[in-house]
Amino acid sequence: MGREKRHVIIGAVAAGGSAAFKLKRLDPSLQVQVLEAGEHISYAACGLPYYISGVIPNYHSMVMRTREDFEKGAGIELYTSHRAREVDLERGEVRAEDLLSGSVISFPFDRLLLATGASPLVPPIEGIELEGVVTLRTLQQGLQIKEQLQMKDIQRVLIIGGGLIGLELAETFRVLGKDVLVLEKMPVLLPGVDAELSSLLEEELYKNGVSVQKEESLEAFQGDKEGRLQEVVSSKGTYSAELAVMALGIRPNSELAREAGLKLGEGGAVAVDRYLRTSVPHVFAAGDCAEAYHRVLERNTYLPLGTTANRQGRLAAENMHGQNMKLFSGVLGSAVAKVFDLSVARTGLSEEQAQEAGVSCDSVWVKTLDQAPYYPGSAHLNIKLTFHPSSGKLLGGQLVGREKAVKRVDVIAAALSAGMTVEELAELDTAYAPPFSEVWEGLVVAAGAAVGKREKYA
Amino acid sequence: MGREKRHVIIGAVAAGGSAAFKLKRLDPSLQVQVLEAGEHISYAACGLPYYISGVIPNYHSMVMRTREDFEKGAGIELYTSHRAREVDLERGEVRAEDLLSGSVISFPFDRLLLATGASPLVPPIEGIELEGVVTLRTLQQGLQIKEQLQMKDIQRVLIIGGGLIGLELAETFRVLGKDVLVLEKMPVLLPGVDAELSSLLEEELYKNGVSVQKEESLEAFQGDKEGRLQEVVSSKGTYSAELAVMALGIRPNSELAREAGLKLGEGGAVAVDRYLRTSVPHVFAAGDCAEAYHRVLERNTYLPLGTTANRQGRLAAENMHGQNMKLFSGVLGSAVAKVFDLSVARTGLSEEQAQEAGVSCDSVWVKTLDQAPYYPGSAHLNIKLTFHPSSGKLLGGQLVGREKAVKRVDVIAAALSAGMTVEELAELDTAYAPPFSEVWEGLVVAAGAAVGKREKYA
Repeated sequence: MGREKRHVIIGAVAAGGSAAFKLKRLDPSLQVQVLEAGEHISYAACGLPYYISGVIPNYHSMVMRTREDFEKGAGIELYTSHRAREVDLERGEVRAEDLLSGSVISFPFDRLLLATGASPLVPPIEGIELEGVVTLRTLQQGLQIKEQLQMKDIQRVLIIGGGLIGLELAETFRVLGKDVLVLEKMPVLLPGVDAELSSLLEEELYKNGVSVQKEESLEAFQGDKEGRLQEVVSSKGTYSAELAVMALGIRPNSELAREAGLKLGEGGAVAVDRYLRTSVPHVFAAGDCAEAYHRVLERNTYLPLGTTANRQGRLAAENMHGQNMKLFSGVLGSAVAKVFDLSVARTGLSEEQAQEAGVSCDSVWVKTLDQAPYYPGSAHLNIKLTFHPSSGKLLGGQLVGREKAVKRVDVIAAALSAGMTVEELAELDTAYAPPFSEVWEGLVVAAGAAVGKREKYA
Repeated sequence: MGREKRHVIIGAVAAGGSAAFKLKRLDPSLQVQVLEAGEHISYAACGLPYYISGVIPNYHSMVMRTREDFEKGAGIELYTSHRAREVDLERGEVRAEDLLSGSVISFPFDRLLLATGASPLVPPIEGIELEGVVTLRTLQQGLQIKEQLQMKDIQRVLIIGGGLIGLELAETFRVLGKDVLVLEKMPVLLPGVDAELSSLLEEELYKNGVSVQKEESLEAFQGDKEGRLQEVVSSKGTYSAELAVMALGIRPNSELAREAGLKLGEGGAVAVDRYLRTSVPHVFAAGDCAEAYHRVLERNTYLPLGTTANRQGRLAAENMHGQNMKLFSGVLGSAVAKVFDLSVARTGLSEEQAQEAGVSCDSVWVKTLDQAPYYPGSAHLNIKLTFHPSSGKLLGGQLVGREKAVKRVDVIAAALSAGMTVEELAELDTAYAPPFSEVWEGLVVAAGAAVGKREKYA
């Protein structure tokens, strides 16, 4: 093979960290250099709502791999506080600024991985710079919010955006005894979850003292003389608040790639093929900055999630290293979240998503129990399945129920991966005992309802 | 079609009850007669351990369908306390004894379903007739045990047999404050679960004050002058006990079928084809009295479970009624049980079962967490996957962990149903949030370990 290949990775959180370690596992003698603009690495961003609420007492536990793990443990060259400024494809090098010294260093590469992540969507509105107007994306931001909560007199918290993260954060601040209002511009909460099910979570918010305002969009923030947030102005009114957290979603950090002349794709993310190669074959992209192939839609989408970042990072490493490249099997948009005592999980396409994508679909929605009806404390488990009417092929599923019950969404994910029909899912031989489900497992009941519906229009 | 067909079903618990209701749903005008030797119908036998322990306060809640549901609700002719004595295939009738009057009644049929269930295995040993030596199979027996516990001074309870039911019962009696000893003749507990995992449950028993004696077989029961159990004699010693519960497994009630000249198959169960027809095509069999097609072994087995009984009962009804008969998709032996604070679930073949069946296999065993490591209170989730070494095809899976975590065994069941390989399972896009799993779902980690093992011997 001649000279050893030089591997450079931009980003050291989920995708970048996974890739770096995987490369060194594949061949400990490889040169792997990782550039990270922040000072924190390889942390579990999904834990931040629980760190802020105090459920997770120590943020160090959320760091999955330390500097020592990178350097001494795996022999990775780690450059934190180094912001990549330019990818020079012609010379085959990344130029990065050492944020501490201001000097610019060149990192020549044979293989490059872009794992630059994503940034929170921040609308260009008045008052966005006020103290108390925050986003929660990085560990650094999480630490700052936690500090503000300790230092300042914060009682009223506005969450802008009623997606999964917004709802997790509503719980976070309620647990801390704050007055919480969720502002959502759409008529329903939780994009990707159909209205029948998202309304159950809305009820759960009300039940726990969270206010929700829908069809109401953010217009401005207003501050006091010290530049601190005082009021949030929406399309319908004005709310006093000491803290406003924007949870409007994220956009891919794809500027570096664009400036280097790499093709961008869905949602402005770095375009990749099924091998996670960008439009320049020896440059790869993975995680929140990149597209992800959707198994049900059978095309690329922008669907950034922590699991995807880890999976793509690992696969990108294999393909950067190996001769026999592997296809990325794709994503299903599987996600789960706990919202007080109710949890929600989803995978594949919701009915609305299928319709938007022009996929012919039908759905069933059943209310089952998460234990035998006679076993004390059983609770409702709501299941919605979406399927292709003529073939019966499963398109997606959504569950709302207790924390212990919704992770069976992975059964639907397996069924989707295998291209199963509702008929096949209805025949699943599930495990049963009174503390675990009804004798007819809820997923089987839901699939049976879909079979019945199909038989009717046959 | 000429004259309406007459449908007779022998048995009114799981398979029989499911079949009767399904027939009437398919065509409310059908004549459906159900003969049941006992007085209780359509009850959830799996709830009995929890009824005895008091977790389920009222046994009526365990009756899934009442006499009124059968008769007024569905228009089924229900004959309880009617024991079928003979199936006369030549005349096409069942002769049943009314146990209350002693008279014998004939029930002519065009289609017959045998749903006669199973009986506990009872060894022919000394003292088996003593008061205090019991089995737990029927609701009636459950009521009697509960009554004995209230009337008699019972402190020491021996469970004979360390299978799933035996372990559930160990918990039952411990919850009631009894001294509990489990006697198992094999060197390990829990047939169908490999030793690495069953040993974890054994530890859980010890932790909860249950004694376990293995490689020790039952020899005799000894009673006092009033005929009450006093001592249990094993191959290794003698134990004082006021109650001995035999949980040695069950055998199919197939005498009626055998006497009628129907073919018996695996484990002495009524032989059936994939349509659930016996060796006489208009006679069907379902549930604990019948064989079940095993999806992984691709042949019939005797594997009686409540879920199978319900599934087979319903399918038998469809095939008794319909012109286009449907294949029974088969079983995987999926089962789950709670044993104090640890639960166990399994599906497909264990490593030992695969070896016994002469199926080439390999296995991996991983210890994962059931939540993010930094999320408070995460606990171990042990996963064992068994797979075919050369094709990578999944053969089975076992989980031991907390109640909230082990039901994901159904993901493995789905993967088995779809014929997935460990490579495919390792690519599953699972749902993740800190309260629900690690970012790499345990099942994916286990499948990844299997992939790694396969790559090594490639």
